[in-house]
Amino acid sequence: MGPVNIGVVGLGTVGAGTVQVLQKNGVEISRRAGREIRVTHAAVRNLESRRACSLEDIELTVDAMSLVHNQDIDVVLELMGGCEHAYDIVISALRQKKHVVTANKALIATKGNEIFDEASKQGLVVAFEAAVAGGIPIIKAIRESFSGNKIENVEGILNGTCNYILSEISDRGCDYDEVLAVAQDLGYAETDPYFDVEGIDAAHKLTILASIAYGTHLNFESIHVEGISNITHADISYARELGYRVKHLGIARRQNDALDLRVHPCLLASDQILANVCGVMNAVKVNGDAVGETLFYGAGAGAGPTASAVVADLVDVVRTLTSDPFNRVPHLAFQPSELSSFAVTPIEDTVTAQYLRLTVVDKPGVLGDVTKILGDEGVSIRAISQKERHMDASAVPVVIVTHQVREGSLNRAIAEIESLAISVAPIVRIRLEE
Amino acid sequence: MGPVNIGVVGLGTVGAGTVQVLQKNGVEISRRAGREIRVTHAAVRNLESRRACSLEDIELTVDAMSLVHNQDIDVVLELMGGCEHAYDIVISALRQKKHVVTANKALIATKGNEIFDEASKQGLVVAFEAAVAGGIPIIKAIRESFSGNKIENVEGILNGTCNYILSEISDRGCDYDEVLAVAQDLGYAETDPYFDVEGIDAAHKLTILASIAYGTHLNFESIHVEGISNITHADISYARELGYRVKHLGIARRQNDALDLRVHPCLLASDQILANVCGVMNAVKVNGDAVGETLFYGAGAGAGPTASAVVADLVDVVRTLTSDPFNRVPHLAFQPSELSSFAVTPIEDTVTAQYLRLTVVDKPGVLGDVTKILGDEGVSIRAISQKERHMDASAVPVVIVTHQVREGSLNRAIAEIESLAISVAPIVRIRLEE
Repeated sequence: MGPVNIGVVGLGTVGAGTVQVLQKNGVEISRRAGREIRVTHAAVRNLESRRACSLEDIELTVDAMSLVHNQDIDVVLELMGGCEHAYDIVISALRQKKHVVTANKALIATKGNEIFDEASKQGLVVAFEAAVAGGIPIIKAIRESFSGNKIENVEGILNGTCNYILSEISDRGCDYDEVLAVAQDLGYAETDPYFDVEGIDAAHKLTILASIAYGTHLNFESIHVEGISNITHADISYARELGYRVKHLGIARRQNDALDLRVHPCLLASDQILANVCGVMNAVKVNGDAVGETLFYGAGAGAGPTASAVVADLVDVVRTLTSDPFNRVPHLAFQPSELSSFAVTPIEDTVTAQYLRLTVVDKPGVLGDVTKILGDEGVSIRAISQKERHMDASAVPVVIVTHQVREGSLNRAIAEIESLAISVAPIVRIRLEE
Repeated sequence: MGPVNIGVVGLGTVGAGTVQVLQKNGVEISRRAGREIRVTHAAVRNLESRRACSLEDIELTVDAMSLVHNQDIDVVLELMGGCEHAYDIVISALRQKKHVVTANKALIATKGNEIFDEASKQGLVVAFEAAVAGGIPIIKAIRESFSGNKIENVEGILNGTCNYILSEISDRGCDYDEVLAVAQDLGYAETDPYFDVEGIDAAHKLTILASIAYGTHLNFESIHVEGISNITHADISYARELGYRVKHLGIARRQNDALDLRVHPCLLASDQILANVCGVMNAVKVNGDAVGETLFYGAGAGAGPTASAVVADLVDVVRTLTSDPFNRVPHLAFQPSELSSFAVTPIEDTVTAQYLRLTVVDKPGVLGDVTKILGDEGVSIRAISQKERHMDASAVPVVIVTHQVREGSLNRAIAEIESLAISVAPIVRIRLEE
């Protein structure tokens, strides 16, 4: 059969990286796919910018829609990012009977339901492996390799920027702002780091993972999201003394007929594999009722790893180009008519152990007051330690690790302790994952 | 569409586990596959044996061939193990136009080339995810998710029995024979452990991984195989002192136009993730030129994990039942006409650092003799330590870690040292993986 012609929208880091992989490994890729795959057109914002790939035999345009309407193009790669324009491109490509491969997690998490409806109507594929955890093939693993399982929980380090910052605070003893500045210099964090450090990016990814794990529509709004900007070096080193590492996790867990869906910092026992995933690396743990515990580790971002996922999707699409549209792997793992609804557990009803750091005046009776309030709310204590007072401080930190507790009960106890005169700063709280 | 009818050959641990998963998770599985999947027939050796699954609605027979020839059966699951009879079953099933799913690593590693030829001729699928690393979806990851990559190396803990024994020797300080006896009691090792502990099972799996990673025919005979039966607690604890763990690995590595293919014990730096995979768990590290380093972790054996992989393959097969036979994922990742040949590097020409334990008489000048011989063969030393003599021993252990060295040169040095009068026992040698 003849070659498959590809149009790429966006030649930034991911777009140029993908073209480069297709050029460099073209022979191996065709040996696998059974057909030549060639990039014939690319849409860019600026025709004159320098690119990290060769532009030989590629026709450039600034008009992405012209590419979508080009009859010679078989598959569109949407690698521009952002939501509104990307949505128009993807929907138009589908209406022009073109399969789509995208790396756009925000687009899939927030507009995926509409996009997949259109794709199903047209009998086309929208592939999005690169949208979650970069080069780690976690979409395919959950969607195809665990199709015999009831998925119990999925949890992962889904944002390399957060993991880099937490790793550096831990290793170098600096605080958040200082490490963020270094991460920005190194290109590991954006100039505006909000989406990464406040957990939005991880929540986009968790939205997608939860949907394919549990066979439910995408529901970004239902996720409880916290970032890492209030994590201090002090908390990380106290946690370390207690045998824990602090990691920013996305967690999806089935509890009877409801789902826990949350993104926030966690303490992990230091001998867990997830606790030892450092720097910009990502990892995702999946538990299924048949397969047991599994873990997938790799680079979650960057030109090469993301391109690896985009090209894998592209080869899958090329293989399906002549096959029956109704017998492909469903976008959300389950057949569209078989998606179900789950209640999402309010964060107040979730049950976890928690680490608390109180800042209290250093005088007799304080610990008694605190433990009485916790006891009255049914919060039982696993470990407690009062730290030494720094020379110039009038208050001391008290670190507490609780047993499993309903978050709503703990919230009441925290509010009551914070209202006491002995409490001189808000209580810092980090959930444990066990 | 109507249900797909399955015939299962073998209802031992894996067969009964698979039927159990199909029964327990039937609703979720059909929601994914788009069709009901039901086991209608099973072939067993003994009709009266107790099974770990319900036999309701399943017709039992002792005649596996009758099942292969049954026109009502769409897919055959070969879960009986062994080679000769299994080969006849699989080939006959293909000739009867039935897709096949198998968990049989020995069969695929030694007869896969013939089996895939027959499947291609018939336009059918033979799926074998369960043959390597149990529930870890490593076949699909390499074959489909890394299709954009040149695979650089694949290395893994591929045999849970070996990993359990090495972990226990390390943790409990017992020696090989003692731990093996416990492993046999717990069902982690067979009564005849030869295939596991001598590396044959890992070599079967490495044969398959190398083939799909590099696009070459299956070639079990070319693999250099060593087991773990000569690893002692002393070596493991010396290695630990030097910052290493001892693991039994399968290694496939592309070196220019040749492949390193070897199965043997290795030292791994203790902060590597692979070094921290303990007990019966498996893990596989894959490096691709685009994706970088990835790692996959999970249970490598047992009813549930293996059933998870078998059912995933089955759902894939069900999805392809109506699609174009020439556009499926190729069995060995690359199109059959595109498989290539590689030279396999003779073990003498491989280059690694190595750990050596000498047993020598405790007298002046011995270290000088040893280091001179090593130096003459171009072996340079990274670390050396002479251990204290045990009260009742006339000889002392000397532990050496070399820099990278060609194995053939080291072999000559070892032979020369062993021929010296000061050397009172064979030298123990373990390669380092870095």
